[in-house]
Amino acid sequence: MIIVLKQEAKTEDVARIEKTIEEKGLQVHVSKGENQTIMGLIGDTTKVDPESIEVDPAVEKVMHVSELYKLANRAFHPEDSVIDVGGVKIGGGHLAVIAGPCSVESKEQVIEIAKAAKAAGANLLRGGAFKPRTSPYAFQGMGSAGLDILVAAKEATGLPIVSELMDAEYLDEFIEKVDLIQIGARNMQNFDLLKKVGKATKKPILLKRGLSATFQEWIMSAEYIMASGNPNVILCERGVRTFESYTRNTLDLQAVPVIKELTHLPIIIDPSHAGGKWWLVNPMAKAAVAAGCDGLMIEVHNNPEKALCDGPQSLKPAKFEQLMKELKPIADAVGKEI
Amino acid sequence: MIIVLKQEAKTEDVARIEKTIEEKGLQVHVSKGENQTIMGLIGDTTKVDPESIEVDPAVEKVMHVSELYKLANRAFHPEDSVIDVGGVKIGGGHLAVIAGPCSVESKEQVIEIAKAAKAAGANLLRGGAFKPRTSPYAFQGMGSAGLDILVAAKEATGLPIVSELMDAEYLDEFIEKVDLIQIGARNMQNFDLLKKVGKATKKPILLKRGLSATFQEWIMSAEYIMASGNPNVILCERGVRTFESYTRNTLDLQAVPVIKELTHLPIIIDPSHAGGKWWLVNPMAKAAVAAGCDGLMIEVHNNPEKALCDGPQSLKPAKFEQLMKELKPIADAVGKEI
Amino acid sequence: MIIVLKQEAKTEDVARIEKTIEEKGLQVHVSKGENQTIMGLIGDTTKVDPESIEVDPAVEKVMHVSELYKLANRAFHPEDSVIDVGGVKIGGGHLAVIAGPCSVESKEQVIEIAKAAKAAGANLLRGGAFKPRTSPYAFQGMGSAGLDILVAAKEATGLPIVSELMDAEYLDEFIEKVDLIQIGARNMQNFDLLKKVGKATKKPILLKRGLSATFQEWIMSAEYIMASGNPNVILCERGVRTFESYTRNTLDLQAVPVIKELTHLPIIIDPSHAGGKWWLVNPMAKAAVAAGCDGLMIEVHNNPEKALCDGPQSLKPAKFEQLMKELKPIADAVGKEI
Amino acid sequence: MIIVLKQEAKTEDVARIEKTIEEKGLQVHVSKGENQTIMGLIGDTTKVDPESIEVDPAVEKVMHVSELYKLANRAFHPEDSVIDVGGVKIGGGHLAVIAGPCSVESKEQVIEIAKAAKAAGANLLRGGAFKPRTSPYAFQGMGSAGLDILVAAKEATGLPIVSELMDAEYLDEFIEKVDLIQIGARNMQNFDLLKKVGKATKKPILLKRGLSATFQEWIMSAEYIMASGNPNVILCERGVRTFESYTRNTLDLQAVPVIKELTHLPIIIDPSHAGGKWWLVNPMAKAAVAAGCDGLMIEVHNNPEKALCDGPQSLKPAKFEQLMKELKPIADAVGKEI
Repeated sequence: MIIVLKQEAKTEDVARIEKTIEEKGLQVHVSKGENQTIMGLIGDTTKVDPESIEVDPAVEKVMHVSELYKLANRAFHPEDSVIDVGGVKIGGGHLAVIAGPCSVESKEQVIEIAKAAKAAGANLLRGGAFKPRTSPYAFQGMGSAGLDILVAAKEATGLPIVSELMDAEYLDEFIEKVDLIQIGARNMQNFDLLKKVGKATKKPILLKRGLSATFQEWIMSAEYIMASGNPNVILCERGVRTFESYTRNTLDLQAVPVIKELTHLPIIIDPSHAGGKWWLVNPMAKAAVAAGCDGLMIEVHNNPEKALCDGPQSLKPAKFEQLMKELKPIADAVGKEI
Repeated sequence: MIIVLKQEAKTEDVARIEKTIEEKGLQVHVSKGENQTIMGLIGDTTKVDPESIEVDPAVEKVMHVSELYKLANRAFHPEDSVIDVGGVKIGGGHLAVIAGPCSVESKEQVIEIAKAAKAAGANLLRGGAFKPRTSPYAFQGMGSAGLDILVAAKEATGLPIVSELMDAEYLDEFIEKVDLIQIGARNMQNFDLLKKVGKATKKPILLKRGLSATFQEWIMSAEYIMASGNPNVILCERGVRTFESYTRNTLDLQAVPVIKELTHLPIIIDPSHAGGKWWLVNPMAKAAVAAGCDGLMIEVHNNPEKALCDGPQSLKPAKFEQLMKELKPIADAVGKEI
Repeated sequence: MIIVLKQEAKTEDVARIEKTIEEKGLQVHVSKGENQTIMGLIGDTTKVDPESIEVDPAVEKVMHVSELYKLANRAFHPEDSVIDVGGVKIGGGHLAVIAGPCSVESKEQVIEIAKAAKAAGANLLRGGAFKPRTSPYAFQGMGSAGLDILVAAKEATGLPIVSELMDAEYLDEFIEKVDLIQIGARNMQNFDLLKKVGKATKKPILLKRGLSATFQEWIMSAEYIMASGNPNVILCERGVRTFESYTRNTLDLQAVPVIKELTHLPIIIDPSHAGGKWWLVNPMAKAAVAAGCDGLMIEVHNNPEKALCDGPQSLKPAKFEQLMKELKPIADAVGKEI
Repeated sequence: MIIVLKQEAKTEDVARIEKTIEEKGLQVHVSKGENQTIMGLIGDTTKVDPESIEVDPAVEKVMHVSELYKLANRAFHPEDSVIDVGGVKIGGGHLAVIAGPCSVESKEQVIEIAKAAKAAGANLLRGGAFKPRTSPYAFQGMGSAGLDILVAAKEATGLPIVSELMDAEYLDEFIEKVDLIQIGARNMQNFDLLKKVGKATKKPILLKRGLSATFQEWIMSAEYIMASGNPNVILCERGVRTFESYTRNTLDLQAVPVIKELTHLPIIIDPSHAGGKWWLVNPMAKAAVAAGCDGLMIEVHNNPEKALCDGPQSLKPAKFEQLMKELKPIADAVGKEI
């Protein structure tokens, strides 16, 4: 941590701040420049709250030198984490493909889609039982009955299942039934929920990036889960909110190399939610694989016209199968097994 | 709702879509233009999911004509809502001032600040007992003990209290102890929490705007609470996330006239969180009052240098007192009682 | 400037970077921490391009300590600049009101509006002769003939005139005819144009903030004009682009105190372009004055229904007159003469 | 175009608006719903300025049905445009690779880089002679002397050259010396410059997307050039401005399929400027090719540590060569010749 003093700061200001820092067991290096004095803190800077320093009238600003996350930080864990989801490895050379409908609508629907997805090469099944909808008047999902349908589809196909947990009330049920518990974009900073999934289970957690979350904030949310006891976090980029409205969100594929640089966690890409249009899914899925992601999450629906949600961004099984074929040479090119 | 068909749409496409709509009990007006055919839906369009139409291969786009919210909509409730918070009216000509520390740190601290705030003219006391922090390693608040301190401060000063609820686990305790239950920006789309505060209580709810929530989404979140049974919602603008980083967030004061145009709910402004710098609070509080807001929420701390959170944006009691004096003529100018 | 080295940086890396810096005549203070080494540069850091350091393989990041602008910087010019625009003072306690139509359409129109604006209390006249339009097929303005109409309106009313210069080709004509030369938001980083208006004239320049320009970039564009020889720059906030689309742009009123903190230049607010709706102008104009701005720029049109551009955001003269009356007590409250 | 009337609109309002529209030679279809009346316009809607309608007191909003661009619109030109740049085809199955330094620094530098780039497979040479820099104190480019160096490099290698034109003053010189004239992101809405390059030449123009330009605005800027007489426009996505600051900008690869859907123009991707970090270039270049772009623009520098600008984002020739090899199988997979 670096403290930049105001031009008018006096010797007694420097001394006062120095004393405050040293009381917390850190050392301070003071550099006096022509216009400005700068203080460098040495030691465990997590003991110092930057805001408590920033408020000193002699301080102009406080700058961070090192990152605030430890458990997710690649600096302290250089090799890639590989996470086992019901027998499927995610991370480290394996490319996972999660496919399925936006929301669970009926047993027949889910099993039909699951079979088609598996036949095309998907290795996990997604489906929303509890749905976050902007409007209280929109379909809110089938709830627990939806989870049971996913379990039946798992039995029918062998595909591990992924579903979104919106409230801790249902956590035990998710731990029992679901293989990869998704925390949605809107709950990325629901810190109580993060702590609870971290404490209650070691089942893998799929943490979606919030609509306007920075990389730092997203990683800090993963750190919440990890610091609470669950190291099995997979990150998922699903588009961020920008000024552009033709596409639902702007897919930030730079997230792939950035997350790999800063953390050791796997990252998967959801091109369906990002663009909101089915014809964007194919090119963006290919781009994501070429960028080096560890997996894809793709909405597949047998009858998008009748889908209760997100029909416009869902692929029909035939188009999904076509995509899987087109992904193969790209995965090969970047050294991923699909 | 308007459906715009693709140029290549044929007569049978029009007929098929018309039939689908009419099956839901709506009427359709078809306009055939030189290049494009347009269908206007007449009747209760909440019965038609626009996504189920958009996915039809003959459809280019679906456009909304009327708003999706009913209970919050000024069109159906033309007069301003005035909400009673522990005896203090918010909305309709009354300007409420909520003041207090970011987080509750000790009984002495809170009571001292509460007395100073009251003396300066504040009429509600704020204080965080449960704190949403980006980092799991930062101070997370005193929890229930913090709520008890707020209750003690209320007894000492008579000021009704405002505090943030982060998880439904503590809802009963909040209903018992707190006068205005705050839902924070990060939980604005925690839909389960919204439903629960709507169902369990009629105590007023202060709903902060999410960091990148549109006006429409914010109002829809209020609608969640209202549709669950609690009509007493107060909206709070606290800055939105933009590309600018010198200020913590960009305070969107256009929210004041926009919310008043679209809804009948009171809106208050939090200039402390928006800018993140104490010297922005005074000018922005004045601007908010001039724009016509129904209240202000201001962080006041007796010792910002030692604050456990948000010190840099807190006013000392003397500066808060000065602000209250400067607000008076502006409130007068816009016809608000302070 | 602070250089943060990577954890793996070695003694020879430190020595190499130290040498590079010292060759440019600066001193370096090196602080070795437990995990990281930090170098503080002392002397004239404008001689060091941070990018040339950042590229060194041993460097993690380079952080700025002081601002890059000199001439606009309040640190070197503590008192407010007051700029004379054709006899009207802008800055330092005077509140200027610039009013007029979006675009010049006819002599009768402009003179009628100018007289009404003057009668209501405006002290400068605006009008677009050259219009930046998103579409090549939209009305592009009357050009030079439009400027002549503004000159005629100035003769008829005595109001100095403000108009937008889009291309250096017309610079001489603007210097001759216009009192305050506007550089529009879309040209804020048209650096050649900035240099040319800085070099060719000392007439005041009204520099609008770009749609997604940071405070720093905006001030640097002012610095371009000032460094080219023209110190008479007035800044104008007109809304920034965000994710919100109900309002055309998000008016950033924090710009007022921020610009006053960082620079000594006057700042005026354009609430008409920001919101794009006439009913937002009144509350936002009041808010801007309460925040401490030095002036307002407001679109007034005698017949918005027939306006060739920006009709929806224009006030009719009667509404403008009403606004002027309502602004008076707010200006009084913040100590500004209107 | 659709006009939505307010609930309180009366029969005479409908009649008045109908008359205004019909006077412009269009037909109107009126649909009266339970709550709202809607008017659909049929005919050449470019004759009606939506703003002139929006301002009518009986109108709630005006919605566009069809796009405002004609010449760039794929609807009227279904096949891909293929543009010849000094003998190199861009668009339609050919993948162009433009490589070179951010700025021209010396003849030796540029020729060395050009040879290395060509050897690695680049087919065009880029280099900035006139540089848009945020600060007036930063290196502004070598100007005309820089262009001459590029011409010399073209003679030495046969690579056509690409350089940025910042001001119409130098247009003739660019037409003479440069094969592909770049309009930079900051000038995307410098409409006079767009008109001038459209009118003066048929040389291909590389139009970069503005930092916060929507797809619609970007295409409209291409339309400006095309409507002025030059159909040879190539679009270039170079990252957009968002809340994220770890990366310089957010690369919007959805631009590739979107531009191909809406227009017939080629689109190339600049991963160097988007991320601002050299290690993001390789994964993003691969992703861009997988998404279906028509070309790449990559900064290559033989000595990034000494580069006068953008060193941190430049690849050394060896890394560029490696990238070109890794791109080959991905280009093959999407059916592009490299």
